[in-house]
Amino acid sequence: MKMPQTFALISLAIAVTVAASAQTGNTKAAEALRKADREWMAAYASKDADKAASFVAADGAIYAPNAPAAQGDAAVKKMAADMFKLPDVKLSWTPTLVEAAKSGDLGFTSGTYEFSFKDPSGKTIDDKGKYVTVWKKQADGSWKVVRDIFNSDLPSQSAQ
Amino acid sequence: MKMPQTFALISLAIAVTVAASAQTGNTKAAEALRKADREWMAAYASKDADKAASFVAADGAIYAPNAPAAQGDAAVKKMAADMFKLPDVKLSWTPTLVEAAKSGDLGFTSGTYEFSFKDPSGKTIDDKGKYVTVWKKQADGSWKVVRDIFNSDLPSQSAQ
Repeated sequence: MKMPQTFALISLAIAVTVAASAQTGNTKAAEALRKADREWMAAYASKDADKAASFVAADGAIYAPNAPAAQGDAAVKKMAADMFKLPDVKLSWTPTLVEAAKSGDLGFTSGTYEFSFKDPSGKTIDDKGKYVTVWKKQADGSWKVVRDIFNSDLPSQSAQ
Repeated sequence: MKMPQTFALISLAIAVTVAASAQTGNTKAAEALRKADREWMAAYASKDADKAASFVAADGAIYAPNAPAAQGDAAVKKMAADMFKLPDVKLSWTPTLVEAAKSGDLGFTSGTYEFSFKDPSGKTIDDKGKYVTVWKKQADGSWKVVRDIFNSDLPSQSAQ
């Protein structure tokens, strides 16, 4: 009975592996994407606008709600710098879906975010929502953001 | 002089082709994406919720602003059906960036949208904004939406 069980376990392991790779396209590239995504969040946590903008491709854009698109390095940097001026600002996100193409040159991360800051009266404003980030592998092998877009789960104007 | 000129032209043609394919990843897949995107917009224009939802993958999601994510066929269909109930509703979008991975299994469209409807008083409410749609090639060769997300360019609550 031992051999068939072993075979069954190996078959199951192969089936799970195949299913996982079929789902994600390129697991190695997806892992690189997750790493770039974590590093990008760390750049925001450190409130370093230059560093945060360095993760966005030269022609990349950030699409924030209720604002025109911020495209290109100067606009992306300004958006980050403006955000870092908010008192006690906190931004974090959790990727719930990360996939890369089989060719490992294009991928995306998607998930939920949490954002908060203190308004002029000292009251904490809390927001939470969802996002999609499209990443493209650059000539130097690094992953950069081509498009990043997010919106709130909360009813309009009651982001509290 | 004729041969060198011909060679120069061929070299230029190759250089242009290589540059174009380097930029877009997979032009054939990107063209298929544009076609799927146009057909999806036509489904919305015809106000057919079943048809509109059929372009979204089984585990796909639409991320609308100020609302929770609509994930899966029933939620996506309901979101479309609710939208089609708005008086004189119009939705159109223009992809300004369409790229597919070299492997032709993953891609995205991004651009601007225009949305309008009549409120209960008969006043036309106009919105415009930006979006990102991630598409994935399915086992049957069709392209389906994995994630679609959009937000307004207009200031909050003043969507005129």
